[in-house]
Amino acid sequence: MIQKYLLPRGFVDFYPEDMAGRHWLFGKMRQASKLFGYEEYDGPALEQVELYAAKSGEDLVKQQTFILNDRGGKKLALRPEMTPSLARMVAQKQEELTKPIRWFNIGPRWRYEKPQKGRTREFCQWDVDLLGIESPEADAEVIAVACEFFKLVGISAKEVVVRVSNRRLLEQKFNLIEIPPDKYSEVIRAIDKKDKMEINEWEKYLVSTGVNDLQIKDLKKILQDKDFAGESEELTTLFSTLTDLGYIDYVEFDPLVVRGLDYYTGTVFEACDRKQEFRAILGGGRYDNLVEIVGGKKLSGAGFACGDKVIEALLRKLNKWPEGKAANAKFLVTIFSESLYRDSLRTAQLLRSAGLPTELYLVLDDLPKQLKYANKKGIPYVIILGPDEAEKKTVMMKNMSTGEQTEITQEELLEKSKDL
Amino acid sequence: MIQKYLLPRGFVDFYPEDMAGRHWLFGKMRQASKLFGYEEYDGPALEQVELYAAKSGEDLVKQQTFILNDRGGKKLALRPEMTPSLARMVAQKQEELTKPIRWFNIGPRWRYEKPQKGRTREFCQWDVDLLGIESPEADAEVIAVACEFFKLVGISAKEVVVRVSNRRLLEQKFNLIEIPPDKYSEVIRAIDKKDKMEINEWEKYLVSTGVNDLQIKDLKKILQDKDFAGESEELTTLFSTLTDLGYIDYVEFDPLVVRGLDYYTGTVFEACDRKQEFRAILGGGRYDNLVEIVGGKKLSGAGFACGDKVIEALLRKLNKWPEGKAANAKFLVTIFSESLYRDSLRTAQLLRSAGLPTELYLVLDDLPKQLKYANKKGIPYVIILGPDEAEKKTVMMKNMSTGEQTEITQEELLEKSKDL
Repeated sequence: MIQKYLLPRGFVDFYPEDMAGRHWLFGKMRQASKLFGYEEYDGPALEQVELYAAKSGEDLVKQQTFILNDRGGKKLALRPEMTPSLARMVAQKQEELTKPIRWFNIGPRWRYEKPQKGRTREFCQWDVDLLGIESPEADAEVIAVACEFFKLVGISAKEVVVRVSNRRLLEQKFNLIEIPPDKYSEVIRAIDKKDKMEINEWEKYLVSTGVNDLQIKDLKKILQDKDFAGESEELTTLFSTLTDLGYIDYVEFDPLVVRGLDYYTGTVFEACDRKQEFRAILGGGRYDNLVEIVGGKKLSGAGFACGDKVIEALLRKLNKWPEGKAANAKFLVTIFSESLYRDSLRTAQLLRSAGLPTELYLVLDDLPKQLKYANKKGIPYVIILGPDEAEKKTVMMKNMSTGEQTEITQEELLEKSKDL
Repeated sequence: MIQKYLLPRGFVDFYPEDMAGRHWLFGKMRQASKLFGYEEYDGPALEQVELYAAKSGEDLVKQQTFILNDRGGKKLALRPEMTPSLARMVAQKQEELTKPIRWFNIGPRWRYEKPQKGRTREFCQWDVDLLGIESPEADAEVIAVACEFFKLVGISAKEVVVRVSNRRLLEQKFNLIEIPPDKYSEVIRAIDKKDKMEINEWEKYLVSTGVNDLQIKDLKKILQDKDFAGESEELTTLFSTLTDLGYIDYVEFDPLVVRGLDYYTGTVFEACDRKQEFRAILGGGRYDNLVEIVGGKKLSGAGFACGDKVIEALLRKLNKWPEGKAANAKFLVTIFSESLYRDSLRTAQLLRSAGLPTELYLVLDDLPKQLKYANKKGIPYVIILGPDEAEKKTVMMKNMSTGEQTEITQEELLEKSKDL
C-alpha cells in the first residue's frame, strides 16, 4: 500500500509512546518554574512579521521563518521564538501587570531551517523570564531555575555546566584594548562564532571587521582567561547568590559566552553538556530594551529559552530519558461471551467510577488473544468474568506480571484496586 | 505610549490568569480520555494541503485554512482539524499499531474564519477516536467519554444533551420516500443546515437539489419524529449500552442531527446545551473510509472533536468556570534590609528544597509594600526575617487571610508547611 500523504519535511509525529517522554520533560520544566513562583502564559502561534523584524531584522526573519499572507494583505510569521510575543504582551498591559513579572511558557516554535539530526522545523521550547527587576540577584534567580531543572531531571553538575559572562565586563575589556564602541556588536558576533570556525578563518573574519592584529592577540588572551569575573561587581554578586542558592557547582565564568543576539545588555549565559558533545541546551541573559522596542515603556528583564531536542538527546545518552510504553489503562476487562458482554461492560464502568483507567475489550475473541492484547499494551491487571463468576457475583483478577489469579467480589475488587 | 505591534486579528493571548482555566479544562479532557484507556498523541501543526483536500475538497481548504508555501514549492496548511493527521499517522504505521487504537489529542487548530464572539482563528480542540472496532458498543464508548467529561466539569444531563442519530437509518427512510441514492449527501447537507435557515428558504433549497414537494413533506415528518430509533438495531444497542454505562440521561435520539461532513457513515452525534443558547459543544460519529482515503487500508473508526470556546462559554454561563488568579507561589519571602538579604534568600531556597513554590521579593522596599504585593498576587503566606529573628534563628510567618503572625524556627517552618 502506498502512503499517499507524507509528514512535511522537518516535522515530527508524536505517537503515544513518544508523548510519555514529552509529558515527563514538560512536567519537570513546569515544576522548576513554579518552584520559583513563575506563572505560565501563552501567546498566538502567528504574529505579524514586523514584530520579529523589529528585534532581528526583516531579512533574517524572512530567511528563517515560515511566513504566510493574511488575506487582509498582512504578512504573518509562525513564531520562531517566544520573546517577541512576551514583550508585546507585556507592553500591551504594562500598567496593569503587577511587577515583577515572573512568566514561563512551554510550546511549539517553528523555524525554516535545514532539517538535520537534533534540529527540526517544528520543536518545543521552554521560556523563562523575569521582568521589572534589574539586579544580579534577579539574573541569578533565572539561572537558578535552569539549574533546578537539571537537578529535577537528574543531570548533575558533573554532566552539565552553565557558562556565564557579562557583556558590560567584556566591553570594558574591549575598551582597554581600544576596540571602538561601534565595533562592539560585530566583535561580539565574532566571539559567538569562534567555536564554529578554524582559528585562521576566525582571525581573518575579525580583520575584515576592522580589528587589528594586536587587538586580536589581546582579544584571544582575554577569551582564554577564566579568572577575571571578579573585576565585575555584577558577576561577583551573581556568583555569590548562586552559592547561597546551592547551585554554584553548576555554574562557571567563561568570557567566550556572549550569545549572538544583539539585544542582550548585561549577564549572558548558556548551558552545555560538560563533554561538549551537543549544541547548547539553553541560553539567555539580561535584556534592557526589548519591551521598549515593541512599543512599551523601558522595562529590563532577564530570561532564557531551552529547546526540547538537545536536552532529550543528552538525557537519552545519560540513560535518563523515561523510555517505555504509553501511559496505559490499569485494567483490561475481557469479554467472555455474548451473553456476559454487559456484565463485563458494567464491571469496567464500576472501575472507572472509582477513578481507575479501564479498557473494555469490546469484541468477542478467545481469552488468550485478549490476554495477549493486555500484555502488548502493558496493562497490568486483567478482569475475567465467566459464567461461574457471574453466578457467584465475583470476578477473576489476573496480575499480568506474576500470573497470579484471584477470585474476588466486585466490592473486594474496588477495595483492592485502591492500593494498586 | 503607542502599541506598535498588535496581536493578529482573530488570535488570542493567554495571560497567566487565563492559563489557569485552560489547564483545568484540558485536565478534565485528559482525565475523561484516560479513564477509558485512551492515549495521547500529537501531530505536526502543518500538513500538506493535499491531505486536507483529500477529505474536504481543495476549494474549501483554500477558503478556510491558513496556507503557506514551503520553499520547495509545496503548499502547507496550518491544521484546521486533527482527523486527517490522525488518519495519516495511523496509515503510516498501520501494521505495527496494536488494534484497537484508542487515541486522543488536545491542541491548537487554525481556521481562516471571520472572527466573531466565541470564534477565533486559533483555538484548541480535544479529539477522541477509537479505530479498529466497528460496533454500536464502540460508538457508545466514544459517546461515553464525552458524557464522562461533562460529569467531570460539573455539567448535568439537565444542562446538556448528546443528540444521536444514524446515517444508515436515515438513508433507509430516504429510500422509503424514494429519494434517489445519488441525492443522499445533498439532502444530508440540507438537513444539517435546517436550523440555520427559514423554513421557506430551506424548502426552496431542497427543491433546487431535485427533491419534490411530497418528499419534502415526508422528510419534515421524519425529522420531527423522535421515536423511530428502535427501527435501527445499531441505535437500539447503542442506547442500551449507554444505559448500562450510566449515561443515558445525557443522550437522546434526534434525526435532525446528521453532521455536515461527508465522511460519516453510521452513528452521528453532537452535544448541545439544552437551552440551545450556544453552538454545538462537540460533534462526531462513525467514519469507515478515512484511513483508506489517505492511503491506508480500510479501518473503521468513531470519534468526536470538542473545541475549547463553546464549552468555556457554557461553563462561564453556568458559573462553573474556575475564575481566579494564576496559580501562584505559596510563600513570599520578604527582604528586611540589605544585610539580611542573604538570610531571606536562603530561607526561600529552604522552602523550595521542600517542594514549596516560593517567591523571593528580590528588592529592598518597605514591608507594607512587600505585603501589598503578596496580597495582589494572592500569595497566602509571607515570611518576614528581621534582625531579631535572624539573631534567634527564627522567622515570622504571616497568614495573609487571617493576618495571624507566628514566630517559628526554620525547622518548624518546614514542618508546618507540609500541612498548608
